[in-house]
Amino acid sequence: MEKYKNIVTNAAGRQVPTIINGEEHVPFMGVGKYRPTGRKYGPPIATCADYPDDGNKIVANLKEALIKSGLKDGMTISTHHHFRNGDLIANMVFDIAKELGVKDLRWFPSASFPCHEHLIPYLEDGTINRIEGSMNGPLGKFASEGKMKGLGVLRSHGGRYQAIQDGEVHIDIAVIAAPTADPFGNANGVNGDAACGLLGFALGDSQYADRVVVVTDNVVPFPAIPWQINGNYVDFVVKVDKVGIPEKIISGTTKITKSPDRLLIAEMTARFCEQAGLIYDGFSYQAGAGGTALSIGNYFGDILRKNGWKASFIRAGSNKYPVQMLEEGIVGYILDGQTFDLEGVRSMRENPNHVWTSPFTSYNYHGKGNFASMLDVVVLGATEVDLNFNANVVTHSDGYLLHGIGGWQNTLFAKTTILPIPLFRDRIPVIRDEVTTLCAPGEMIDVIVTERGIAINPLRTDLIEKTKNSGLPLKTIQQLKDEAEEICGVPEKAQLSDEIIAVIKWVDGTVIDSVRKVIN
Amino acid sequence: MEKYKNIVTNAAGRQVPTIINGEEHVPFMGVGKYRPTGRKYGPPIATCADYPDDGNKIVANLKEALIKSGLKDGMTISTHHHFRNGDLIANMVFDIAKELGVKDLRWFPSASFPCHEHLIPYLEDGTINRIEGSMNGPLGKFASEGKMKGLGVLRSHGGRYQAIQDGEVHIDIAVIAAPTADPFGNANGVNGDAACGLLGFALGDSQYADRVVVVTDNVVPFPAIPWQINGNYVDFVVKVDKVGIPEKIISGTTKITKSPDRLLIAEMTARFCEQAGLIYDGFSYQAGAGGTALSIGNYFGDILRKNGWKASFIRAGSNKYPVQMLEEGIVGYILDGQTFDLEGVRSMRENPNHVWTSPFTSYNYHGKGNFASMLDVVVLGATEVDLNFNANVVTHSDGYLLHGIGGWQNTLFAKTTILPIPLFRDRIPVIRDEVTTLCAPGEMIDVIVTERGIAINPLRTDLIEKTKNSGLPLKTIQQLKDEAEEICGVPEKAQLSDEIIAVIKWVDGTVIDSVRKVIN
Repeated sequence: MEKYKNIVTNAAGRQVPTIINGEEHVPFMGVGKYRPTGRKYGPPIATCADYPDDGNKIVANLKEALIKSGLKDGMTISTHHHFRNGDLIANMVFDIAKELGVKDLRWFPSASFPCHEHLIPYLEDGTINRIEGSMNGPLGKFASEGKMKGLGVLRSHGGRYQAIQDGEVHIDIAVIAAPTADPFGNANGVNGDAACGLLGFALGDSQYADRVVVVTDNVVPFPAIPWQINGNYVDFVVKVDKVGIPEKIISGTTKITKSPDRLLIAEMTARFCEQAGLIYDGFSYQAGAGGTALSIGNYFGDILRKNGWKASFIRAGSNKYPVQMLEEGIVGYILDGQTFDLEGVRSMRENPNHVWTSPFTSYNYHGKGNFASMLDVVVLGATEVDLNFNANVVTHSDGYLLHGIGGWQNTLFAKTTILPIPLFRDRIPVIRDEVTTLCAPGEMIDVIVTERGIAINPLRTDLIEKTKNSGLPLKTIQQLKDEAEEICGVPEKAQLSDEIIAVIKWVDGTVIDSVRKVIN
Repeated sequence: MEKYKNIVTNAAGRQVPTIINGEEHVPFMGVGKYRPTGRKYGPPIATCADYPDDGNKIVANLKEALIKSGLKDGMTISTHHHFRNGDLIANMVFDIAKELGVKDLRWFPSASFPCHEHLIPYLEDGTINRIEGSMNGPLGKFASEGKMKGLGVLRSHGGRYQAIQDGEVHIDIAVIAAPTADPFGNANGVNGDAACGLLGFALGDSQYADRVVVVTDNVVPFPAIPWQINGNYVDFVVKVDKVGIPEKIISGTTKITKSPDRLLIAEMTARFCEQAGLIYDGFSYQAGAGGTALSIGNYFGDILRKNGWKASFIRAGSNKYPVQMLEEGIVGYILDGQTFDLEGVRSMRENPNHVWTSPFTSYNYHGKGNFASMLDVVVLGATEVDLNFNANVVTHSDGYLLHGIGGWQNTLFAKTTILPIPLFRDRIPVIRDEVTTLCAPGEMIDVIVTERGIAINPLRTDLIEKTKNSGLPLKTIQQLKDEAEEICGVPEKAQLSDEIIAVIKWVDGTVIDSVRKVIN
C-alpha cells in the first residue's frame, strides 16, 4: 500500500494527497464549506446474552483482554492521554502485540507523549504501521525523518471525535486507562491514586469501537460513580498494579510565567480584551495551561473583580487558578476538558459547577453546534504565524513535527481568537512570509499579541475601531515581522523534502496541509 | 397498508404477525435466543455550519420548530412521559399537526397517560395512524375496541431504547419536554417549576432522532447544569408558558398501602426474601412505587437495620422512602430511572449518590450488559399469572389493554423476580389457566406471593430448598389457583375477536404476543 497518492491543491492553496494510507479523503474546501452527506457510523449491535449477568467483566490481564477482543494484523487500536506523560498502558498494549507477533497496527491515540518513545522499535519492526494522532517530541522527530511506515494523520480533539463518529476511523479495540472502574466497566477519573479528572477523550471510542477494554488500578464495587465512561459500552475490565505514574500525570506547565517578556504579553492581551470591550459581566473565555495563558487568566480575574463582574464560564484545561476564580465566585462554571493539576481534579470531584465535558460537547464540528463557538475569547499559542494570519501549531520552523493539534483548531471558532506569542524564539522570528505547516486559515485568527506590539486581523474592523484610541501598541503584522527581522535577521526556510510524512486535518475531516520530511 | 399479516406461532406458542404496519419483525425465539446481526442505526451527520455560532437555538414556538423540523405525512414523532399525567406537550404537538393538516403520523411516546385522551379525535381522523408505546386507560380502551388505524406496538422501556438504537424505529422528530433548558438545548429535570427529576426516557431519542426539539418553561443561561440531555443533539429550543402540570407530574401512588391484605403480602414478601437468604450486606433490589412495593421496601429497610447491613444500591422509581434509606446510610446508592415524588427530585438534585440513569444504562438488552441483571431482587406487579408462571402486565382478564410494559420486562432479568399479587381483584382470580396476554415467559418469574400463600417456580430448586423449613405458607401455584376459584368461582374467558389490535415486544425486539380486539 502506498502511503499516499493523488496530490491536489486544496482551497488554502496547499498540496495535499487525497488517498491516504489507501483510503480516500477530502481536501480542505474552506471554513464551513464541506458538507457531510452520510450517516454516523453504526457499531455492531451487541446483546446482553453475550455478557455476564452479574456484570463482572474482569479478565485476568490485558493480554487476555486483547486476545478476547480478537487482536489481529491491521487493526486500529486506540488509547488516550488522560495520564499525559505518565501513561503506562499504551506501551503495555504494544508490548503485548509484539509478543503475539501482530503486525501493521494503526495506533490511534488521542495524543502521544515522550513516554511513548518506547514504541519506536515497534514502528521500526512493523508492529505499528503508523500513528494517527499527535506525535509530540521523539515520535514526531521519528516521523519527520521519514521513518514511519504509514502516513501520519493529525487531528484536533474535536476532529478525532468527528472521525470516529463519522466512521472515517473505525476503531477495532479501544483501551481506556481509568483511575477508577467497577467490574461492569463504569469508569471515572476523579477517584483513585491516578486520579486525572476526567476521561472525555475516550468517550467517542467507548461509543463507537467494536471492543472496549477498561484498564484500572482501582477496581471499586459497582456502581463506580460518576460514570464518565458507561460500562454498557465496555467489553472487558482489567486490573493492573499501576495505571499511570501520578507525578507525571499532572502537567508541569501550570506555573505562572516569570519571564518579563511573557508577563508583558499577558498583560497586553488582557488590556487589549478590556479596551476592545471583550470582557463584560457574563463573558466567557478559554485559555490554556501554559505560563502566559495562566497569567492572562489572572489578569482577566483582576478585571472581573475591579468591575464587580462575573464570567459565565471558563472552558478549560483547568488548574488551581480557574478553580480559585470558581470558588471565589467570579466565574459561574468551569467546563473542563482536561485537568492539569490536582486542584483541578479536586474541584471537579467536589464542585458540581466544575463540569466534565468531552470533545463531543465542546469541539465536535459534526454535531448540532458545540461549545467552542459560544466562547467570547480564546487565547492560544502558535509556533508560527504568517502575514495573512495563517497559523501553525504542529511544526517548528526547521520543519520538525513536534506538537499535536489538541483542541487548538476547535477553539478557533470562538468569537475572538487571540494568539499571544513572542516575536521570536531562540532568535528565530515567529512571524513568517508563509507558515511551514498550515493548521488554521488566517480568517480564524483575530489578534496577535507580541511583546513589541499587537496586530489585529484587518477582517476585524470592529476590533480595530474599538481600540484605535486605546493607547495600545497597535501595529500591522508586516511591521511586527520587520521588527523581528531587524533584530534576528531574515530566517532561512526549512530544508524539506517533497516527501510527505503526515497530513493535518481540519475540524471537518478535510485535509488542510501536508507535513514534509526533514532533510538533515 | 395492512395493519398486520403473516401470522406464525412463536417459541412461546403464541400467534403473532411477522409483518406489522408494513415492516418485518422477528417472532419471539426464547429468552436470550435471538441474536442481532446488524449495526446500530446511524443518524445523518450534522455540521456546526448549520447551527448558530452563539448557540442560541430558540425559535418562536413549537409550531415553528415542527415546521423547521420538516413535519410531514407519515413521520414518526416521539414524546416522553417524564411529566406522566401532567404532560401538556404531546397534545400540543398533535394539535399543531392537525392544524397543519399532516396525516398518518406514528406517535412513539415512552408512555401515554389518561391526559392524552385528547388525542382520540386525531386517531379517528387519521392525523395519528397509531401509537407505538404504552396505552394506559382511555387510549388502551380505544385501541382494544379495534378503532386505531394502525397496529399498536408495545415495548418495554429497554425495548424502546433497543428499537431506536437498532434502527427498528426511526424517529423523525423527537419533542423533549424539559423542566429546564438553556438556549443551546442542554436540558435537565432537576430544576424548574416542573422539576420531575430526570429525562432518561428521552436519551435514545436525542441520540438517534433526525430532529430534536426541546420544549421548556424555564430557559436558563448556558450552561444548564446538569445536562441530562446534551444540547449537541438538539436542533431547536422552544419556550412555553407551562411545560407540565406540576401537581400531576408526581405519581399519586407513592403512599404505603393501608389495605390489610396488601400489607400482609408485603410482609410475607419481605419475610420470604429474608428466609431465602436473598437479603445480605451489600444486596440490591428494585421495587416500584405502588403501595405494596413501598411497604416491601420499608420491610427491607427494617431487615437491613436489624442486621446492621447496608444495601449496595436500589434501582428505582424513587420516592421519599428510598431517599430516607439513602440519607440514613443503609443504602449506598439510588440508581434512578424515574422520580415519583418531590423528595425524589430533591434528593437527585442534591445527592451525588442519587444517580440518574436511563433505559440505556439500566435496561437496553442490546448493550454490553445492563444494570437489571445485577439486581438481587426485583418486586413487580402483574394483572395475571398462569400455572406455568407466565405473566401478563398489559391487559386485564376482560381483554382490555390498559397498561404499558414500562421497565417490567427488563427487570425480570434480576437474580430473583417476585410478584406480590392479590389472589383476586374485584372477585376475579389473578392466577389463570393461561394469561390473556403473554408479557413474560414463566421461566423469568421466580416467586408469587399472595395473601393466602407463596408459590415458588419449580425451576428455582434453590429457593424451594432454602425455605422448606421456614414456616412460610408455601403452596403450589395450582393450590393458589384452586383456592381463589373456591372463593370466586371459575372465571370466564375474555370475549375476544381474532383481530389483532396490538403486539407485545420482548426485550430483544422480537414479538412475544398479540393483543386481540375486545368483543363488547
